[in-house]
Amino acid sequence: MQLAVQQALRGGPATYQNPQVGAVLVKGGRVISQGYHHRFGGNHAEVDCLTKVSPQQAVGATLYVTLEPCCHVGKTPACSQRIIQAGIKHVVIGQLDPHKIVAGKGRDDLLAYGVEVTQESGAAIENLNRHYNWFYRHQRPWITLKTAQTLDGKINDQVGKRSRLSQEAAQRDSQQLRSHHHAILVGERTLTTDDPQLTVRLRALAHPPVRLVTVNRSAVAVGKQIVTDPSAETWLLARQADAADSSFAANVHVVVGDWTPAAIADLCAQHGWQSLLVEGGSHLQAQFVASGLVEAWVSYISPQLWGGTALPAVADSKLAPTSLQFEPVTVTQLGADLRLVAYRTGVA
Amino acid sequence: MQLAVQQALRGGPATYQNPQVGAVLVKGGRVISQGYHHRFGGNHAEVDCLTKVSPQQAVGATLYVTLEPCCHVGKTPACSQRIIQAGIKHVVIGQLDPHKIVAGKGRDDLLAYGVEVTQESGAAIENLNRHYNWFYRHQRPWITLKTAQTLDGKINDQVGKRSRLSQEAAQRDSQQLRSHHHAILVGERTLTTDDPQLTVRLRALAHPPVRLVTVNRSAVAVGKQIVTDPSAETWLLARQADAADSSFAANVHVVVGDWTPAAIADLCAQHGWQSLLVEGGSHLQAQFVASGLVEAWVSYISPQLWGGTALPAVADSKLAPTSLQFEPVTVTQLGADLRLVAYRTGVA
Repeated sequence: MQLAVQQALRGGPATYQNPQVGAVLVKGGRVISQGYHHRFGGNHAEVDCLTKVSPQQAVGATLYVTLEPCCHVGKTPACSQRIIQAGIKHVVIGQLDPHKIVAGKGRDDLLAYGVEVTQESGAAIENLNRHYNWFYRHQRPWITLKTAQTLDGKINDQVGKRSRLSQEAAQRDSQQLRSHHHAILVGERTLTTDDPQLTVRLRALAHPPVRLVTVNRSAVAVGKQIVTDPSAETWLLARQADAADSSFAANVHVVVGDWTPAAIADLCAQHGWQSLLVEGGSHLQAQFVASGLVEAWVSYISPQLWGGTALPAVADSKLAPTSLQFEPVTVTQLGADLRLVAYRTGVA
Repeated sequence: MQLAVQQALRGGPATYQNPQVGAVLVKGGRVISQGYHHRFGGNHAEVDCLTKVSPQQAVGATLYVTLEPCCHVGKTPACSQRIIQAGIKHVVIGQLDPHKIVAGKGRDDLLAYGVEVTQESGAAIENLNRHYNWFYRHQRPWITLKTAQTLDGKINDQVGKRSRLSQEAAQRDSQQLRSHHHAILVGERTLTTDDPQLTVRLRALAHPPVRLVTVNRSAVAVGKQIVTDPSAETWLLARQADAADSSFAANVHVVVGDWTPAAIADLCAQHGWQSLLVEGGSHLQAQFVASGLVEAWVSYISPQLWGGTALPAVADSKLAPTSLQFEPVTVTQLGADLRLVAYRTGVA
């Protein structure tokens, strides 16, 4: 199963919006084939694995697969039927698929045809598709708050001017973090102060994260990189309609509404965006903290102190403090910076 | 020399206000004695080491000592003369003593009497007496800012009420941190909100850190633990004189003045307090950051998010942000909490 997990990880963000899945075929105590889900629309892991052996070899073998095989005909034929037809004797499943189109039905299909099915779960399996699992279990996106801050928790030392905090290693890492989320969100002040591109510049992605920006009116986005750069979809979450709403290119969408964290989570759910990375600023982070819609916290800490009136990473003068509890933090040194990663207590 | 460093560390805060010093006597390639400075007023390390061997054994031996031997007669006779009289052939010194009463004169004394002197320095030696070295090199205390904060850099979630953040391991560690400083400083709001004892409760110290509190008038301290608890000296740094000034017990001193960070550092220098631990609150930390009088930062981070109007660890609405740069941070897991320790870039 460990081998199957390693296979699964080869998929990475290319499987969007499918989960990462790996499979290993074992016969007579020997691994005879390995496979994984390469990309959205491509072969599922089980099929990738089975196509690498002859029909005779597969008969009577045991298939280890990190996720329950699907039982529906979609972009590809149902895996459960493919497994049954191949004469696989025993399937070891890492976890059941929380997607309601499968949700135990793949397993039941195998059992109905006399295939032995057992389960071998664990943290490595669960973490393979943390966002996917969360999304289909809770019908809302996994939400990560991300900041780049000083030792004293500041993100900006001068109103209206961009502060560069993280060094190269941390910047590269935060691009990786983006690539593992389906949507990235910033607030209007971050848009006007930083004019960020909000793209993954490390590598070309077939499905780059969509860019969400909360604004009062869409006019504020005219000429900004998130609308002039065509490499990803942009959604302007506006409080009020504006003449500029219809002035943007086809990859830019304007939606008018009361964009609370819950409403933003709903929008993500409607579009199947399984994970949301909130990159700031201060007020937007505070709204998510106050709403309780937070599954993970990632902060890149630069060894500096700013003090005084510098802008805190999370603050809002109108929101009462709350207390969200997290599991113990994982720390990684990235050049001179630290990365702190914490998961909300009890999330699964 | 490594052995001598280990010996030195056995002294700990008991050597207050002397440095920690260790010594090892080697003859014929064998360690024949080890010693250290046990406590203020007690034998210096060299003497502790020499008294454990017979006069014959010491003759012709090599003495490793982490700090330059003293050459003045104080509470104990001059070590340089003791070494010369013992017939030591070679002294290996870890570092010269920055205290102006020694400052190379101990070494010169040995050389003048024909003792061979060499130096073996290094970070372990320097760190043995980081505060002592800093104090005598710069004539002002080593200043550490300490906070207990959330992931989003908050120290208090409700005005006027104490917030308990750190768990037991971090609390114990912060007591250790206190024991390694000569003075502890808090501001008036911390006094009135937390009513802290500001003592080292881990163990009995012959010279516990003095407690400094900046107040507007001393009346605010009446009945507070820092004045009712007699186990350490307390200095009330008041902006204005008050009728309460003469109402306190003998261990409580009231000094009236304009208590800027520089003025507080001067007070420490006058009293030979080599190190100052600033424990908050928010405004006091911000004043030290703005003044640049910061050598180290220690934060205990609790895995929580508070957001909203919770009080930031370092903030002041009237002080412009500055940028103090630190070396890469050292992180230690303490139960569910993290300890971050950072030293200012270039301090030595």
